[in-house]
Amino acid sequence: KESLKRIVESARFNTFITVLILINALLVGLETYPAIADNYGSWLLVLDIIILAFFTLEILAKLFVYRTKFFGNAWNNFDFLIVVGSLILYNSSFISVLRIFRVLRVLRTVSTIPSLRRVVTALFMAIPTITSVILLMSIIFYVYAVIGTFFYADIEPEYFGDLGLSLISLFQIFTLESWASGIFRPVFAAEPWSWLYFISFIIVSTFLMINLIVGEIVNNAQK
Amino acid sequence: KESLKRIVESARFNTFITVLILINALLVGLETYPAIADNYGSWLLVLDIIILAFFTLEILAKLFVYRTKFFGNAWNNFDFLIVVGSLILYNSSFISVLRIFRVLRVLRTVSTIPSLRRVVTALFMAIPTITSVILLMSIIFYVYAVIGTFFYADIEPEYFGDLGLSLISLFQIFTLESWASGIFRPVFAAEPWSWLYFISFIIVSTFLMINLIVGEIVNNAQK
Amino acid sequence: KESLKRIVESARFNTFITVLILINALLVGLETYPAIADNYGSWLLVLDIIILAFFTLEILAKLFVYRTKFFGNAWNNFDFLIVVGSLILYNSSFISVLRIFRVLRVLRTVSTIPSLRRVVTALFMAIPTITSVILLMSIIFYVYAVIGTFFYADIEPEYFGDLGLSLISLFQIFTLESWASGIFRPVFAAEPWSWLYFISFIIVSTFLMINLIVGEIVNNAQK
Amino acid sequence: KESLKRIVESARFNTFITVLILINALLVGLETYPAIADNYGSWLLVLDIIILAFFTLEILAKLFVYRTKFFGNAWNNFDFLIVVGSLILYNSSFISVLRIFRVLRVLRTVSTIPSLRRVVTALFMAIPTITSVILLMSIIFYVYAVIGTFFYADIEPEYFGDLGLSLISLFQIFTLESWASGIFRPVFAAEPWSWLYFISFIIVSTFLMINLIVGEIVNNAQK
Ligand code: NA
Ligand code: NA
Repeated sequence: KESLKRIVESARFNTFITVLILINALLVGLETYPAIADNYGSWLLVLDIIILAFFTLEILAKLFVYRTKFFGNAWNNFDFLIVVGSLILYNSSFISVLRIFRVLRVLRTVSTIPSLRRVVTALFMAIPTITSVILLMSIIFYVYAVIGTFFYADIEPEYFGDLGLSLISLFQIFTLESWASGIFRPVFAAEPWSWLYFISFIIVSTFLMINLIVGEIVNNAQK
Repeated sequence: KESLKRIVESARFNTFITVLILINALLVGLETYPAIADNYGSWLLVLDIIILAFFTLEILAKLFVYRTKFFGNAWNNFDFLIVVGSLILYNSSFISVLRIFRVLRVLRTVSTIPSLRRVVTALFMAIPTITSVILLMSIIFYVYAVIGTFFYADIEPEYFGDLGLSLISLFQIFTLESWASGIFRPVFAAEPWSWLYFISFIIVSTFLMINLIVGEIVNNAQK
Repeated sequence: KESLKRIVESARFNTFITVLILINALLVGLETYPAIADNYGSWLLVLDIIILAFFTLEILAKLFVYRTKFFGNAWNNFDFLIVVGSLILYNSSFISVLRIFRVLRVLRTVSTIPSLRRVVTALFMAIPTITSVILLMSIIFYVYAVIGTFFYADIEPEYFGDLGLSLISLFQIFTLESWASGIFRPVFAAEPWSWLYFISFIIVSTFLMINLIVGEIVNNAQK
Repeated sequence: KESLKRIVESARFNTFITVLILINALLVGLETYPAIADNYGSWLLVLDIIILAFFTLEILAKLFVYRTKFFGNAWNNFDFLIVVGSLILYNSSFISVLRIFRVLRVLRTVSTIPSLRRVVTALFMAIPTITSVILLMSIIFYVYAVIGTFFYADIEPEYFGDLGLSLISLFQIFTLESWASGIFRPVFAAEPWSWLYFISFIIVSTFLMINLIVGEIVNNAQK
């Protein structure tokens, strides 16, 4: 068990897994080309099974070494989910979902390359400080989605047909993508007061977003 | 009166009101689905009346406890406006306005959840420091709107037909949404010097906006 | 002369001029409505002449009081240009240019309202620290404009027909407005390597812009 | 050799080279106008040969003075590449590539104007601190490109037809350009769950970008 621990924690083992992940990344990339997928599909499948086998062995080895402590690490949980998900879905009919799992394995590079791990950890650390702003943003999106559905469902069913569509449209407006040319102008032609709805939403949501970023900068600068 | 004050200021009372607001939020959301609104409309109405009754009792209790001090708090004024507005509009013919009031009640969550209250207070505190920039932005928008209406009203009546339309179009240009593909290019085909108008407006307004944000960051960082 | 100086420097005089500017702003706004311009055109003209007369007297009084020192102040130069320009163009055939001068008088509010003057002064102070970046941006725009005109003039004459059109298109691409849907995709259909041109330009210009803003924030924070 | 060194390092020599580069910039600009290129093509060619001759002499002089130390400076390497590239491509059939080299000479201004050199050096210094984020961004782009190609290649072959097209489309989505109106909405009509793919990509990539900028600001402020 001690020698297994030494292997599992060695830099060489980590590099080996990283190389496997990169080969896996290359395989899922090659599979997107129909010509390659049709002619070398069985070879790609064999390579995929070999890689999955190695990943399974890796997880088993780590489970044997760390026991329950294995799950105390968020990266291990992510690796576990990806590998177990792939195993469960194998030979099942959910081929689309399996494909997503196979692609998501590429994200495992984050857990094997320390500098990436630091960046992602820092990103996740930023989330708790912004939960209030996200909650506030959600309330604003919800209020505007309900109002938008009430008033514009008949004018633009594609954008405000129901609450879900309105939320998606508000996200589009929030990114300022075709908010006027695509969504606002046709409503404006029918409802002359609609500019209040759209412009107020943009000002409120953008102001909130800018203040979120300003807050993040100031918080980080004062650490 | 003392015991009523204790109740009104208790955490449990606050939670109760928050739950009512969330139920209210759910109700206005459900009402956007025609199938639900048609079949359960009367049930939704009964629930809405019950919630409004509770909100009215809440406001009355707080008015009884705090008397005129009640209006010294901005959140209380907001709650008061929403509830009194709902009561006045009830059974009136302004159904659209009543609906907006019903939806706006969702914003009351901000006054019941302390962390949201802090974020919103911070946002409002940012406004006085930026009034000069907002005033300057208004002057620039006005000057460009007058010039745009003078020169492009005949070329693009949809965008520059009158002062109001020009202001809305300048806001669209300010957000960079289809400023070229939608607004500038057709004008440019007719007026080769129009690029000066559009590009100078974008540079001036964006420069002002960026400096506003830079100023906010620097101000906050030095506090 | 001393008493004239006292008047010219008094707060009441400043307020009076500000009110005149606001009336002037209202007049140019009203003139954009054809119905008003047609029916009350002569009244608006009379008011405009009165306001211009007051502005002329103001400038003359200040010139008499400060003599050559008058031109040592950038705001005075701006006021002088606007008023002298209006006087020269009066009754000339350059009605469009006169109209622009009349509208630009609204900008005089900046010189009469101290808080606006401070903001604008701060904005102009930011320019020298960014001249290198602006120069670098100009070089990049020029290099890409020449390349774009060489390679895409025939494919998209509207966007890359000559150096001037290319510079305007690059500005549009820089603002990310329809850069793909409007400009890049049609070129891409004809020239499969054109993504290198467009994506490299966006990355380089955006990277430069972001660093300009980052630099401005850091500079201001360290003052 | 000492006197040559004095000449090469003199401010006058630097100014002379800068003037040559500006003339070169003017020439490539003039050449984009067919009327000029057709009538004065041979004159432009002669001037171009003279400028290239001067640049070649400059490089030779610097090589003679600094010997191998010449290549220890990144700017010298850039100048060397541009000039040698131009010489090799002269009279070859790669006229397009030669033209690019001729235009790129304009970038040599960066190495002759000290303030520009400082800005560009600062920009390059920013790159190592952001490599982790760039690497992470690349992984996210790759994962989404593979998923996008798998699922949407048949629905939108123009945008997700193969891995390369998907990467370009993801870059377009990342810049928020027509992400909804052009790319997402047509997919959404066929695949109701596709909003998860597009909105998650925008949130993840924008969040990463914002944190990259926040990090750069904080890093620079703490220096
Ligand atoms: Na945009
Ligand atoms: Na757009």
